This record gives sequence, C-alpha cells and structure tokens, in this order.
Amino acid sequence: MFSSVSAGRIAPMTTPSSPKRDPRDLPNIDDLVVGVLGGTGEQGRGLAYRLAVAGQKVIIGSRSADRAASAAAELGAGVRGADNATCAAESDIVIIAVPWEGHRDLLLSLTGELAGKIVVDCVNPMGFDKQGAFVLDVEEGSAAQQAAAVLPDSTVTAAFHHVSAVLLLDPNVESLDTDIMVLGDKREATDAVQALASRIPGMRGVYAGRLRNARQVEGLTANLISTNRRYKAHAGLRVTDV
Amino acid sequence: MFSSVSAGRIAPMTTPSSPKRDPRDLPNIDDLVVGVLGGTGEQGRGLAYRLAVAGQKVIIGSRSADRAASAAAELGAGVRGADNATCAAESDIVIIAVPWEGHRDLLLSLTGELAGKIVVDCVNPMGFDKQGAFVLDVEEGSAAQQAAAVLPDSTVTAAFHHVSAVLLLDPNVESLDTDIMVLGDKREATDAVQALASRIPGMRGVYAGRLRNARQVEGLTANLISTNRRYKAHAGLRVTDV
Repeated sequence: MFSSVSAGRIAPMTTPSSPKRDPRDLPNIDDLVVGVLGGTGEQGRGLAYRLAVAGQKVIIGSRSADRAASAAAELGAGVRGADNATCAAESDIVIIAVPWEGHRDLLLSLTGELAGKIVVDCVNPMGFDKQGAFVLDVEEGSAAQQAAAVLPDSTVTAAFHHVSAVLLLDPNVESLDTDIMVLGDKREATDAVQALASRIPGMRGVYAGRLRNARQVEGLTANLISTNRRYKAHAGLRVTDV
Repeated sequence: MFSSVSAGRIAPMTTPSSPKRDPRDLPNIDDLVVGVLGGTGEQGRGLAYRLAVAGQKVIIGSRSADRAASAAAELGAGVRGADNATCAAESDIVIIAVPWEGHRDLLLSLTGELAGKIVVDCVNPMGFDKQGAFVLDVEEGSAAQQAAAVLPDSTVTAAFHHVSAVLLLDPNVESLDTDIMVLGDKREATDAVQALASRIPGMRGVYAGRLRNARQVEGLTANLISTNRRYKAHAGLRVTDV
C-alpha cells in the first residue's frame, strides 16, 4: 500500500501522546580528537578552524605533512597538522573533505587507520558546465555510500555538505546560520556527529536519514550554488519545526 | 579546471560591488488562475486551501468532476472543482500534485490543455520499505524532467516538494515556517511560481536551480520523512542568507 506516496506528502508524526524530541539531546564528545582529511582545502580548513575554536582537539591531514603543519599553524587555535595516515590513526572522528576525484583512492589507502573510527563524509560529487553545477553519478549511489563500501570496518556518516567554506573561514562571522543534516545507519555515530556540528556557534546537527538517502543531500549543494548565484548569497539551510 | 569541486565548497558570490538581491522582488500574479491536478489528494487540497485563502483564484481538478466539486466545497474559500482537463484548460498556472504512479499518464492526457501554461510539478518519486522512504529512479532524471519531456509546449517548473500537507490543511496553523525551493529553466516562470509561494503567510519562494537539478530536491523529501520520524515533527526548510 505504501509502495509510493502522493506529491509532497509527508506522514504526520505528532500526536498528543508523543512529545517532540530535542535535537540537542546528544552525547558529550568534547574529549574526542577530530581529524580532517583534505584539511588544507577550503572546506577542511574552515571546519578545522571552527571546531578548534569551539574547543575540539583537531588534526588536519594532507598528503604532505609539511603542508598540513603550515596550514595548521596559519589556522592557530591549537590545530595540529600531519600526513593523512597519521591524522586518521590519531583521531576518533575523521572528516573526509577531499576533492571528489581523489575520494575513493584516499579511502582505499587508509582502510586500516580508519577502522573502528567514525567517518564523516562531506564530499559533493559535482561537475560544472556553462549552466552551473550538476550532480555526478556515483556507482555506489553517493560519496558517502562509496566510503561505506570502501571502509567496511568504519562507521560512515555524512554531514557538513552545505556549509559555506567562505563563512567558516571568515573570523568576522561569529555564528553560522545553518543546520547540518547528518546521515548514517548507526545511531551512536550520527548522535556523535550531530554533537560535533552543534559545537559550532549557530550550527545544529539534525538527523536526516540513512546513508542510502545521501545522494540527494550531497547533490543539493548544486542547488544551493544556483541560489547563491541568483541572490549573491552564501545560502545555508535551517530545518524548521525541529 | 572546474570539472568538479572540493568537498562542500560553494563559490563565494558576494562582493562589495554586487549588492544582494531580494527574493521578494517578484511579479504580481494575483489575477492568475491556479489549477491543482490531483487536487483532491492531501497535498493538492492543502495547497489549494492556502492559495485560495491568500486570495488566489483556485480550481482543483480530479478524474471525477463530482469528487472535485465536493472537495472544493469542503475547502471553501472560493475554491472551484472540475475534471482534470477543464481544470488545466481554465488555469494559467497548473500545479501537478498527483501520486507518482499516475504522473506520466495524466500529463500525456493533458498535453493540449497544458500547452502555453506554467506547470508546477511537486511530485516526489519515492518508495517505502521497513527502513523508511527512499528515492525511486526516474528515466528522465526526476518527476519534473519527466513533465518537461512529456509537455514540450508548457513551461515546467518544480516546487512545493517539502511542505507538510498536514500543516497546510490545519486551519489552526496561521503561518507556514518554510521556504519553497523553486526550480526551472525559464526565469519568467520561476519568478511567477516564487510569487505564488510567497502569497502563503510564512512561505517564501526561493530560486534553487534548473530542472536538471530537480532530482535531489524531490528526493530530499525522503530525508525529511526520516527527520520527522526522529523528532516527531513536520520539518520544513528555510534557506538562510537569502
């Protein structure tokens, strides 16, 4: 009967007997070390900076330990730099912020270091042409599902797709006016990543489904790029009624 | 060089010489007649009700003119009911709010009546299993692209995917706390649909890209269903910095 659903229809979930749940009821992850692979790129540096300023221990990883170290020194706030393998090995939660082209190969090279870790994929497989951004097809369905396929011993989540690197890196921006959609198949991991997102002022981690529904969250970045162009903005997303 | 893009990176667009644009700078569409095909379903009735209360002339269409008329009478606010072909023929802007299974056939049957009209597709091709909602593959890429393929003489847009039918239909809800992502390839049409969305209190129509990027906007409904289940909410989306 529910093999499909009418246009736009979202099942009603609120009844008087089931009070709303608070998305801020999350575990304390303050003592966990966060690694950022691709940590010298714009998005990686932006997330590393914000998390470190919020008090998280952060290591940025790069192919070159030297480049990671100098990017870390530039960011300040206690951020350390290391080669990718060291970054992965010494972190509890590892954010994947590499360009899409290098995604699979990087993860394949770090399966051992990433085993047992929470992996947070924030890669958007996109192409550009004269009409703007579009979504690339991924054999596994999405970058996050590719990560899960390559890393069977890690717990893969997906998050931080839509936040503007420009705003993350702008020290004059005190608060980020956006929620972070967090996806994953294990509650413990999505809770931890939601808690991580929620450490950054203004941000809130909101659960947004299983990894099989990651493609459209990754792809929505192409839409936000169109929105940014139309309005000359750095669009973010707030989830309302949560 | 821009064949792909780094994780989460959204190009900066704001410079001191290019002031932000206002998403409320839109044409006046108050005199246009809005048809809603599938207007006796939850989403269709909800949109018809809100638009009519906002002062728009609204016709709901159904296979059965009688069923349309009785649903229209129940909604009040001046909503009229008609069979689908009459609804399409007498409207300037036609919202497609039918179940996904009937989408292609309905549009094929109305190519003449919909010629020259602005069509607003709000259909979400989704399936459900014990893990929740998931996105169905569509040959044309998305429901909206299928509409564009079937209706070469109409101007197809996509919008109203994420708004909760429950909230639309609840007369105690005075304001809808959500933006409406509007997609399409012709500015005049997306502007009109944004103006339409913006007539409903609380709602704002925000441009969100071309039809080729409709799949992920349609699919995101599956994620919002997961969010609704987790938090017992009726989640909507606000686009920030716009």
